[in-house]
Amino acid sequence: MKLFDRLKAEAAPQWSAYVDHEFVRQLGSGELPLNAFKHYLVQDYLFLIQFARAYALAVYKSPSVDDMRQSLEGVKAILDVELDLHLELCGSWGMSREDIEKAPEDTPTMAYTRFVLDAGMSGDLLDLQAALAPCVIGYAEIGAALLKGGSAAEANPYHRWVLEYGGDAYQDLAKGFGAWMDRTGEAYLTETRYPRVLSLFEKASRLEADFWQMGLNASA
Amino acid sequence: MKLFDRLKAEAAPQWSAYVDHEFVRQLGSGELPLNAFKHYLVQDYLFLIQFARAYALAVYKSPSVDDMRQSLEGVKAILDVELDLHLELCGSWGMSREDIEKAPEDTPTMAYTRFVLDAGMSGDLLDLQAALAPCVIGYAEIGAALLKGGSAAEANPYHRWVLEYGGDAYQDLAKGFGAWMDRTGEAYLTETRYPRVLSLFEKASRLEADFWQMGLNASA
Amino acid sequence: MKLFDRLKAEAAPQWSAYVDHEFVRQLGSGELPLNAFKHYLVQDYLFLIQFARAYALAVYKSPSVDDMRQSLEGVKAILDVELDLHLELCGSWGMSREDIEKAPEDTPTMAYTRFVLDAGMSGDLLDLQAALAPCVIGYAEIGAALLKGGSAAEANPYHRWVLEYGGDAYQDLAKGFGAWMDRTGEAYLTETRYPRVLSLFEKASRLEADFWQMGLNASA
Amino acid sequence: MKLFDRLKAEAAPQWSAYVDHEFVRQLGSGELPLNAFKHYLVQDYLFLIQFARAYALAVYKSPSVDDMRQSLEGVKAILDVELDLHLELCGSWGMSREDIEKAPEDTPTMAYTRFVLDAGMSGDLLDLQAALAPCVIGYAEIGAALLKGGSAAEANPYHRWVLEYGGDAYQDLAKGFGAWMDRTGEAYLTETRYPRVLSLFEKASRLEADFWQMGLNASA
Repeated sequence: MKLFDRLKAEAAPQWSAYVDHEFVRQLGSGELPLNAFKHYLVQDYLFLIQFARAYALAVYKSPSVDDMRQSLEGVKAILDVELDLHLELCGSWGMSREDIEKAPEDTPTMAYTRFVLDAGMSGDLLDLQAALAPCVIGYAEIGAALLKGGSAAEANPYHRWVLEYGGDAYQDLAKGFGAWMDRTGEAYLTETRYPRVLSLFEKASRLEADFWQMGLNASA
Repeated sequence: MKLFDRLKAEAAPQWSAYVDHEFVRQLGSGELPLNAFKHYLVQDYLFLIQFARAYALAVYKSPSVDDMRQSLEGVKAILDVELDLHLELCGSWGMSREDIEKAPEDTPTMAYTRFVLDAGMSGDLLDLQAALAPCVIGYAEIGAALLKGGSAAEANPYHRWVLEYGGDAYQDLAKGFGAWMDRTGEAYLTETRYPRVLSLFEKASRLEADFWQMGLNASA
Repeated sequence: MKLFDRLKAEAAPQWSAYVDHEFVRQLGSGELPLNAFKHYLVQDYLFLIQFARAYALAVYKSPSVDDMRQSLEGVKAILDVELDLHLELCGSWGMSREDIEKAPEDTPTMAYTRFVLDAGMSGDLLDLQAALAPCVIGYAEIGAALLKGGSAAEANPYHRWVLEYGGDAYQDLAKGFGAWMDRTGEAYLTETRYPRVLSLFEKASRLEADFWQMGLNASA
Repeated sequence: MKLFDRLKAEAAPQWSAYVDHEFVRQLGSGELPLNAFKHYLVQDYLFLIQFARAYALAVYKSPSVDDMRQSLEGVKAILDVELDLHLELCGSWGMSREDIEKAPEDTPTMAYTRFVLDAGMSGDLLDLQAALAPCVIGYAEIGAALLKGGSAAEANPYHRWVLEYGGDAYQDLAKGFGAWMDRTGEAYLTETRYPRVLSLFEKASRLEADFWQMGLNASA
């Protein structure tokens, strides 16, 4: 995960504002108000639909069949598995499929998802990966940290979330994504171009922090 | 402007929240804090760059040479005229070109512009027009109302803004856009599709209101 | 398959030039020169890669999660199944994976695939479907006719091709595609727009005929 | 024009097959059958419409305002000037605007234009430039060579074509394009990526040769 590590180090302020956000801390401690979590969960469902579109865009943009297949895994993970898991999880909190599908997209949801889609469409696969990375790899980092910190204990009402993103399946997916971005970077990154890629990464990290904040605001 | 009128009527809550926003009232009365206006102005410059991309996308998406030429007028208006006017206006408030070009895009700026670009790319020319319309025609409506209400008096520190958007040149541009959207609608709109077009219009209007609010927040 | 039937009827000259092409007749009778078939098969592999990109574009362009899932089936069919089947089939004719992947794309391959991709990107999902339909449904029609005419007999060196496209699995896929295009047409088609959709269908049918001709020319 | 020179040298077979095509020789000597020229001219009109879309795509894909303005010049040149010049030139050969606009796009026209559009959409600005370059700079090279060889003499029925592309205005435009591609290359090109860019250039050159051949075939 060399390119990712460099981006993360150079976007340190945006990165820590995202992964150490108050929402994350309260999610880990279990103190997060239920309204905040529920608002987040519904918006995350709408977010995932757009992320499936972004992975489909990656298939379209892939310079090789191997890249196409790697991107396809992302589309499948969302459309074949994650959306249903989300609906089930929402259901366990008393929200119906209808409630969720009818919910209006909040501004931070639109901001991050459309930013990723436009970054990818106007640039190349590397630009798209740089804009996707804070979500894909950041969730793995957060999940692993919370799991290590004991947040997967049943006493935490949000332990399922921690188990999902801290668990091996998701950790492997994120590692695979990082390795894929590294390979693309080796082929497409120049030092002259680097500041633009970093800027995409910084903006995407900032938009992720805004997404957590949207959750917190919902309980205010 | 029949299609636009229908959209505006059916998106009345979002529309009035946008065109009657507190930012607009204070702009008209001259009470708007200078910091709010300056923050808005810089973000509007960054916004225009993305809008030029959206009009260029309209050229790409145009089903006829006439549509291409109509879209091209939008690109030219921004890249050949408006960006320089904006820099000049910013200069008159003491902001340098460097200040403006270095300014980070605020979340509401990203949200609205990338939403428009994605709506247009994933849909057709009508979708793109529906997402552009609140900006293009809404500014004309606001400008005309403020002008009529006397806000172009020199005593108002923001009278140049009112003159620009209330003036004949901009009013004509907005009328031309409305007529163009009508023609596209006649060819491409079905009643089954209408709710989706309305939803784009509603979201874009909401994102415009968020943009005003971002200005107000900057002076808080 | 109402919309498809209308398009096919109104594009009758282009359609019959495609489905009754000399290449198809010789494929059915077994008289097709092996060189013609092998050239076709390699180009069809390169064609499928682009078609997977077109289906991925359909995911990106889908107005609903149901549409996204329908499009995803097309991507999976190609990337998870068809490409390997093709390589296996090529192998049975003595061509290695390397031979195939290194083969340069012929002009008719580029013409049809890039036409579909651009039709879809510049238009909406219906435009993309209209450009894909001649391939997806035309192959089913050809396969069914050849199967019915006895071309799947083992004596025909090309009987595997006939079994694949004449078989139930492919027939069902094509029916599903037709029903999907109908649903999109009900929501998005106007009579004013119809001639443009027909034009896409006609051009795509013509480019399919050119693709067969490319095969024949290879044995000349 | 360093990047262009490298591409041209390494795509020497495709390049000379294009710029030294029999169509070009007969255009220069005046021996080209009128039907060949007229077919070319009509298809070139349809080609230019798609090229205006490609330049508009370059505006959309531009990483800076300077790049946007450079791309915009290409859109303007076609939509504001060249299309009308073409119609006028066609008129001088007895073809009406209606004849031209109704003419069906020939396969080589679709192949080249849609290839360029897809290369640009799926890649970045450099990919788009590499696919545009054989047309933009190749025509300048051909025009200059024919002019130098005396083909602009009034005795040549095609002297106006030679004067247009051999003349200073077009030569400057092509030089500007080459310098722009160089700047993009300096920022975005890696050696690992180079073979892909070369492949786009080779394919585009080949598709240009096919375009000339289409003209010759029309008189056969």
